[in-house]
Amino acid sequence: MSPSVSPENANRGQTRPVTFLTDFGYSDEYPGVCRLVIASIDPRIKVIDLTHGIPPGDIRRGGLALAAAVRFSAPAVHLAVVDPGVGSRRRAVVLTCGEHHLVGPDNGLLSLAAAVLGGVEAAFDVSATPVRVGRSDTFHGRDVFSPVAAELARGAAPGELGEAVGFRELAPLELPEPLVTPEQVDAHVLYPDQYGNVILNIHSEVLDGTFFTEGDAISLETSLQKLEVPLRRTFADVEPGEPVLFTDSSGYLALAINRGSAASRFGLGPDNQLRFTPVASRQ
Amino acid sequence: MSPSVSPENANRGQTRPVTFLTDFGYSDEYPGVCRLVIASIDPRIKVIDLTHGIPPGDIRRGGLALAAAVRFSAPAVHLAVVDPGVGSRRRAVVLTCGEHHLVGPDNGLLSLAAAVLGGVEAAFDVSATPVRVGRSDTFHGRDVFSPVAAELARGAAPGELGEAVGFRELAPLELPEPLVTPEQVDAHVLYPDQYGNVILNIHSEVLDGTFFTEGDAISLETSLQKLEVPLRRTFADVEPGEPVLFTDSSGYLALAINRGSAASRFGLGPDNQLRFTPVASRQ
Amino acid sequence: MSPSVSPENANRGQTRPVTFLTDFGYSDEYPGVCRLVIASIDPRIKVIDLTHGIPPGDIRRGGLALAAAVRFSAPAVHLAVVDPGVGSRRRAVVLTCGEHHLVGPDNGLLSLAAAVLGGVEAAFDVSATPVRVGRSDTFHGRDVFSPVAAELARGAAPGELGEAVGFRELAPLELPEPLVTPEQVDAHVLYPDQYGNVILNIHSEVLDGTFFTEGDAISLETSLQKLEVPLRRTFADVEPGEPVLFTDSSGYLALAINRGSAASRFGLGPDNQLRFTPVASRQ
Repeated sequence: MSPSVSPENANRGQTRPVTFLTDFGYSDEYPGVCRLVIASIDPRIKVIDLTHGIPPGDIRRGGLALAAAVRFSAPAVHLAVVDPGVGSRRRAVVLTCGEHHLVGPDNGLLSLAAAVLGGVEAAFDVSATPVRVGRSDTFHGRDVFSPVAAELARGAAPGELGEAVGFRELAPLELPEPLVTPEQVDAHVLYPDQYGNVILNIHSEVLDGTFFTEGDAISLETSLQKLEVPLRRTFADVEPGEPVLFTDSSGYLALAINRGSAASRFGLGPDNQLRFTPVASRQ
Repeated sequence: MSPSVSPENANRGQTRPVTFLTDFGYSDEYPGVCRLVIASIDPRIKVIDLTHGIPPGDIRRGGLALAAAVRFSAPAVHLAVVDPGVGSRRRAVVLTCGEHHLVGPDNGLLSLAAAVLGGVEAAFDVSATPVRVGRSDTFHGRDVFSPVAAELARGAAPGELGEAVGFRELAPLELPEPLVTPEQVDAHVLYPDQYGNVILNIHSEVLDGTFFTEGDAISLETSLQKLEVPLRRTFADVEPGEPVLFTDSSGYLALAINRGSAASRFGLGPDNQLRFTPVASRQ
Repeated sequence: MSPSVSPENANRGQTRPVTFLTDFGYSDEYPGVCRLVIASIDPRIKVIDLTHGIPPGDIRRGGLALAAAVRFSAPAVHLAVVDPGVGSRRRAVVLTCGEHHLVGPDNGLLSLAAAVLGGVEAAFDVSATPVRVGRSDTFHGRDVFSPVAAELARGAAPGELGEAVGFRELAPLELPEPLVTPEQVDAHVLYPDQYGNVILNIHSEVLDGTFFTEGDAISLETSLQKLEVPLRRTFADVEPGEPVLFTDSSGYLALAINRGSAASRFGLGPDNQLRFTPVASRQ
């Protein structure tokens, strides 16, 4: 199906796993077709699904999920496709980070994961890759990214699959910056997770030295309400039904309801804004 | 768990992969139980999920998804279960197409995929297969289709699993036919995909010689509205928010909104009708 | 990433499969990260997904799904995480049942599956396991349960991973008991499945000797309506659109509509109550 790339290299020894993250959803056969393309190139390749439930076109959510996952990965090829610009001039790229390769569109999706993996050592434009399968202008996940990932997994060098490009011109991921002052912290909602935990754009380390002190209550204001919420180690530290602030498993500050949904209770979704102030400052 | 079928054949050499498509959804353990049945018969078998998100009982959607997938598959056993008639007299069948086997209910689900794979060479009724596990009347995915697929994957001949049947009497897939004339094309919506792209029952090749010309606008009428839509190579060829007609990755004509949902915008779902006419014919 | 546990045992011979059931859902990368943790400990381990679509925190639904699945499993490590009490004092446990290990929180989730597998032979508290990865208080699926499951799958003894505990003090699964008398049967809805089939808390064997006779109609009363429903072998035994009672593929009594959703038709969800009486007793 795809032209073989340096078979003398590719067929020797072990293959690397391919991790797989998309916004393809679970209703269509799209992730399945990509798995078939990979298996038809080399049936030994192990595909490890990260998620296919990224909201359609949500590059930021995809980039955050990918970064949270790859930090727990052994050396692998990370195939990620959240690609609202498919068919436009956006590049298809491979980013090499140590023993990891990231494969996907050059739209910022890969950049946070690349940073987690130690930074980009080399980048390649594989838009015109010789290993393309199929001819669609709308499904590069199947036709470009999957065959590229499979060839890398079986040992091809990225330079065989595309041209080296300056990695300083790669598209960055747009993330809102929090505003942190001694008197107040202004945050954005990144996304609510499956449990309704509201993940904020505040990495816990930026709170060192501020009024955020574990055990204390913090004053929290949204566009809809104002309340005091304790900062604790985990949601289990408060009673069921009670709100809590804690550092989530990826290191971000999160707002939760123990055994409930903070997203529903407080009406919070992506990009909603919150303001934190010390409780003492209120009156 | 299942009676061994000609172990001298079954245990030699490699197993084939089993691809797996159902309407079982993602809330219940149903796909997982089938994977356990397959693994308990032969742990070497690789199961490749296509999707389990086919709408419940939607044979047509399942048949289209399966056909779109198998064209990218190496030789395999394709296990497909969308089976609203489970427990009735509908047959359980194996269809052999070259180096591929299709396993599922005889209700049309497999027929389009069989055509894609070059047509049915032999068909077998496995309703009373000796490799059955469990005794349910409602879960043949677990009790009939999975063990049959696993035995085929480890090398059994289909004739060991059931009786040959005349494959001309197999149930066909009911697909609406488009009406194509020089002045107008009447189409049905097959389904909207994950992105809200509306897939139509028009394979692009039937449009050769009609008024559909790439780059031109086409007049489109639904029960709710009339508008002009350009026919382009891909949705990225129009501005974000603009509608476009294009040939999708499976060869069907599709209506999309660049970075939006055409299904939502135009209120289109399965079996809604559309009429296309040349723009010049309006007045 | 994790301290190696008795490598001389762990690296010899085959690994066992890890089955995987959670309430992590399909939107986040949570199941994917667990797969990466397992693969980084031993890439040979085969992970078999049961489902990740258990409703958030629904221990009962998770326990029922796990029990329905494991009865079809070859010897394996069963990793199950529905863990609303993560971060609290609830224990993380391994239950050994013959050649199977169950890994998860000690909140009742594992108990029905343990019974299906012949009962608990030994139990271990792995809350403070030496193979922990990551330091979160909120994602023990990643940090505790996945590494424990992986080490068991590669041959570690559970005693290397935690302290033996008395298994009589394990948390039980709370399941509502039906009330069965000669004149009436009072049942609870356990859950509606993907097809809207309403699964009841009545194992078919408890109906032996009652007025439930296959082929007969039974009088059924919910809080919303009263109707007569035939008890048949399967939903295909009634006309499309008609209601039916039958024994489902796991042995529970279920209420269904042939080719329709009984949950929608009758407005039934978890813990709704139904009363069955003989038809003759009505008037």
